[in-house]
Amino acid sequence: MSPANTIDGTERGYIIPIGGAEEKLNNPEILDRFVDVCGGKAARIGIIPTASELEDTGRNYEKLFRKLGVMHAKVLHFVTREDCQSDDDLQYIEKCDGVFMTGGNQLRLSTTIGGTAIAQAIRRRNAEGMHVAGTSAGAAFMPEHMIAGGKEGSTPSPDMVNMAPGLGLTNSFIIDQHFRERDRLGRLLTALAYNPFAVGLGLDEDTAAFIKCGDELEVVGSGGITLIDPSDLKYSSMDKARRGEPVSLIGIKLHILVSGGRYEIASRDAFAE
Amino acid sequence: MSPANTIDGTERGYIIPIGGAEEKLNNPEILDRFVDVCGGKAARIGIIPTASELEDTGRNYEKLFRKLGVMHAKVLHFVTREDCQSDDDLQYIEKCDGVFMTGGNQLRLSTTIGGTAIAQAIRRRNAEGMHVAGTSAGAAFMPEHMIAGGKEGSTPSPDMVNMAPGLGLTNSFIIDQHFRERDRLGRLLTALAYNPFAVGLGLDEDTAAFIKCGDELEVVGSGGITLIDPSDLKYSSMDKARRGEPVSLIGIKLHILVSGGRYEIASRDAFAE
Repeated sequence: MSPANTIDGTERGYIIPIGGAEEKLNNPEILDRFVDVCGGKAARIGIIPTASELEDTGRNYEKLFRKLGVMHAKVLHFVTREDCQSDDDLQYIEKCDGVFMTGGNQLRLSTTIGGTAIAQAIRRRNAEGMHVAGTSAGAAFMPEHMIAGGKEGSTPSPDMVNMAPGLGLTNSFIIDQHFRERDRLGRLLTALAYNPFAVGLGLDEDTAAFIKCGDELEVVGSGGITLIDPSDLKYSSMDKARRGEPVSLIGIKLHILVSGGRYEIASRDAFAE
Repeated sequence: MSPANTIDGTERGYIIPIGGAEEKLNNPEILDRFVDVCGGKAARIGIIPTASELEDTGRNYEKLFRKLGVMHAKVLHFVTREDCQSDDDLQYIEKCDGVFMTGGNQLRLSTTIGGTAIAQAIRRRNAEGMHVAGTSAGAAFMPEHMIAGGKEGSTPSPDMVNMAPGLGLTNSFIIDQHFRERDRLGRLLTALAYNPFAVGLGLDEDTAAFIKCGDELEVVGSGGITLIDPSDLKYSSMDKARRGEPVSLIGIKLHILVSGGRYEIASRDAFAE
């Protein structure tokens, strides 16, 4: 369940994880940029509110996208696993320029959509050029390895994070959200320390990473993105530490990027602008 | 980190997860079959004892493989992450017909080897035809999504399993071991229920799955293999259940296979022989 294969000549769509609580009224920079990327007013956008338990979450984003000028924005009601086999919704996704996954609980997304025809369609369409954005739980669900939950605090510890398989749109990053606001450095470090192959992406609220897979990432929004690169990790006590004990990690590389900052995925180099 | 790509014309090597406690003296059927698959007495086998904290684990397997007639069996001492950049050991793996990962703690494997040159080499060489076997912790480490730990019992519950990224030799299966002996149905069901895309593989002790990726799996050994296919899952309460509460799952398909049994990966069909 790494990203679906692209076909020669097509370019993979953006994936756009957002740290939650993105500005919606006064200069909604992230949502505006998402709409632009999808083709502007003529874009067709599917909204997946599955993570949310509130009835009007999807409808509110529908109104919001229409207010931003989008003519075709539609809520896809995936509440049960059977909903995720719906031919109508599958056909809608075939024509979408972008899909937007709302916040809520990421385990609702993986439990409901995981392994269904809809999950396959989103993965394939993203490889064909469709863009996929997600905020909060919607962002958490995007990567191959998903942070399902965990504890607050900045020091890693073995029982600090719960992981589960995600949608698999990228396996270059492990994504966490509400990052600064909920003190999540420790749980992201813990997730990375289990197997230090991926780069950690900690997204503050109202902050998005516009990721061109295989190429680069650009920061948009009012907060920061914390990038954690464990590729030079020299020492880790993750395998020895017991529940509740702190974990020692030596040789982590850390970058904080703000609006306009860029990160090259292959070289793992960061640029302030 | 799905399986590395094969090159046209080459055939991916077997991956061979073993449920632990495989017979070593009196008719060591699984180890014999592994040696056969690797080319018999002329095979070159690398032993990775990283999971174990006991000093003689690797050496014992070295002796064992020699007793089975293998001329070239060598322990690769990956104790630290720096060991996993060793040119000598990388060159040895380039020439190996098979790699064998011992038991112990799978988090030692992922913490030490994950993201290093050795992990990349094993993944690439497996795609080129090298076979990879692992017993107990060595089996747990093989798939993309690894069961790092958890609780005993047959009913799934949200806090029953800890997952972490594994070596990524397959993303078709999530693997558990010492399955019947340690009552692990509940934790494997929990792992699958998070995102029901993969098939669960519960390996009893002294039982192995010889997996030809993309093709089929064959059972070897004295115990059983429990295959759990969630693809028709109709209902799951995984997203609603709280810590310690049981999870409802409706529509799981289950097979128990014993020696000689086969499972076709693409069709998800099981055969008794």
